[in-house]
Amino acid sequence: MSERPVSEIRTVACIGAGVIGAGWAAYFLARGLRVRAWDPAPDAADKLRRVIDAAWPALTELGLAEGADPHAITLFPTAAEAVAGAGFVQESAPEDLALKRSLLAELAAAAGPDVVVASSTSGYPMTDMATDAADPSRLVVGHPFNPPYLIPLVEVVGGERTAAWATARAAAFYRHIGKSVIEMDRELPGFIANRLQEAIWREALHMVAAGEATPEEIDRSITDGPGLRWPVHGPCLTFHLAGGEGGMAHMLDHFGPSLKSPWTRLEAPELTPALRDDMVAGAEVSAGGRPMAELVAERDRAVIAVRRAVEAARAAGAGHR
Amino acid sequence: MSERPVSEIRTVACIGAGVIGAGWAAYFLARGLRVRAWDPAPDAADKLRRVIDAAWPALTELGLAEGADPHAITLFPTAAEAVAGAGFVQESAPEDLALKRSLLAELAAAAGPDVVVASSTSGYPMTDMATDAADPSRLVVGHPFNPPYLIPLVEVVGGERTAAWATARAAAFYRHIGKSVIEMDRELPGFIANRLQEAIWREALHMVAAGEATPEEIDRSITDGPGLRWPVHGPCLTFHLAGGEGGMAHMLDHFGPSLKSPWTRLEAPELTPALRDDMVAGAEVSAGGRPMAELVAERDRAVIAVRRAVEAARAAGAGHR
Repeated sequence: MSERPVSEIRTVACIGAGVIGAGWAAYFLARGLRVRAWDPAPDAADKLRRVIDAAWPALTELGLAEGADPHAITLFPTAAEAVAGAGFVQESAPEDLALKRSLLAELAAAAGPDVVVASSTSGYPMTDMATDAADPSRLVVGHPFNPPYLIPLVEVVGGERTAAWATARAAAFYRHIGKSVIEMDRELPGFIANRLQEAIWREALHMVAAGEATPEEIDRSITDGPGLRWPVHGPCLTFHLAGGEGGMAHMLDHFGPSLKSPWTRLEAPELTPALRDDMVAGAEVSAGGRPMAELVAERDRAVIAVRRAVEAARAAGAGHR
Repeated sequence: MSERPVSEIRTVACIGAGVIGAGWAAYFLARGLRVRAWDPAPDAADKLRRVIDAAWPALTELGLAEGADPHAITLFPTAAEAVAGAGFVQESAPEDLALKRSLLAELAAAAGPDVVVASSTSGYPMTDMATDAADPSRLVVGHPFNPPYLIPLVEVVGGERTAAWATARAAAFYRHIGKSVIEMDRELPGFIANRLQEAIWREALHMVAAGEATPEEIDRSITDGPGLRWPVHGPCLTFHLAGGEGGMAHMLDHFGPSLKSPWTRLEAPELTPALRDDMVAGAEVSAGGRPMAELVAERDRAVIAVRRAVEAARAAGAGHR
């Protein structure tokens, strides 16, 4: 196990230089870290450079760490060489279980004994990916969202044979570099956010397949609709507000029967008293004790600012054309 | 049918003064319209006033129409009196089918022959709600999102016996007052956005029921994760970008097999060549012919601005405490 604080990590190995791997590299560089990269693609250097250069203005806008250098990255001919000397390893290979298994085994063998190897996998449990590793204790899922240099969320979860210190160290490292971390206590395919996102996506695919809506109607129904609320209040707090002064309790007691309506192809769970109470208590936690009027005011301020932000971002693009 | 342009509509009847009905009233007032309201609750006047007063700063910030007056609203003792003389009727009664049926029949009878009666229903098809109306030709669904004074989306769809002119007139009126309108060509429980939102919500409820995640983890997984992208790019365009230079086609060909993964409790449709092609073509429409680099730049600008907007909105609230 590792006694050294995560603040001493100076170098990260990025294994895989696709959209996610290169996005991670850009983020690590912006936090002032050095990056050692590997990707088998012949044009990996070009792809990395292109993603990092495209991301750098955004990262500069958000604020660079002292000494951040977009060129502090070196591409190595093998994964083992990239991992040598790195204080943390982020694996972002294609989503192929056999590939992940052999690559993670190789990375675990090459990384130092106190170095955590985190996988960007979108949904595989680490227990399934770690089967080939001689020592799987340092293998952890560290699932980011695209683009990793802008979206704060990272979901962290270990496999059955992952050491508790390794999961904790990955979470501590991500928090140290400014990420919003959710540490899950159990493996779940798709983790949390991707399960929710995948539910939307599958309903959308069903609707297109059935001719019920076009992709552009689906997109606009979100961007001009509930999508405007989700950056400030997640689905649970959103429905807490939808209940008016009665909050989540009123919403569930009032709209609960609509869970039986065919509003999506996903069957709802039984709204048991226990589930109702968990949702009500959870909404109170999300609300942080703030009264409804304050939550409504916060949402309103945020939705207005979000609408303006998106309009400005779109107008800036139109101006460039 | 109506020959008069929607710009001549000066007065709207708001039937029901809950969160949605009062929110609609605030929006109509901000657009310079007069509102005639009815709600059977004894404290309806207070509730209306509270919602309108709470919404007015936000509406002022977004820009009021000339002559907009937060007090240009009158509460009537009966629905028929509220509807008399109104140029458009917005029904926002509780989500109870029997109630909707009798109320919509009453509203259709009371409204002038060229006046459209729109229901804010969250999911009932108009065909099911219009069964008691002597003349259902002017009954239309005009489904808003909470809060109706800030979220632009309105889904418009008629029932089997709705006249085409009435659906078109509702859509024209909403567009005239600044709404983002999706006109659906068929009835579908939950319409479009609520089906997508409901899929997330049901998956979230399942996760809480199974102990897989807490409501606050679910909320943060969205606010700090994919929720930051959805105000600018909907689910389809988001996955177009996730495909990198290859876009939606690459995404589907590469991640298509993950549709078979247990990432949500919702079964995916078969990814047939036809569905694949529809999604690829739809993403191109959403992308509006813009190259991937421009879409990525737009998303990055927007996500940064959205993050800042939400942070500022939260800080403003904290400052008030």
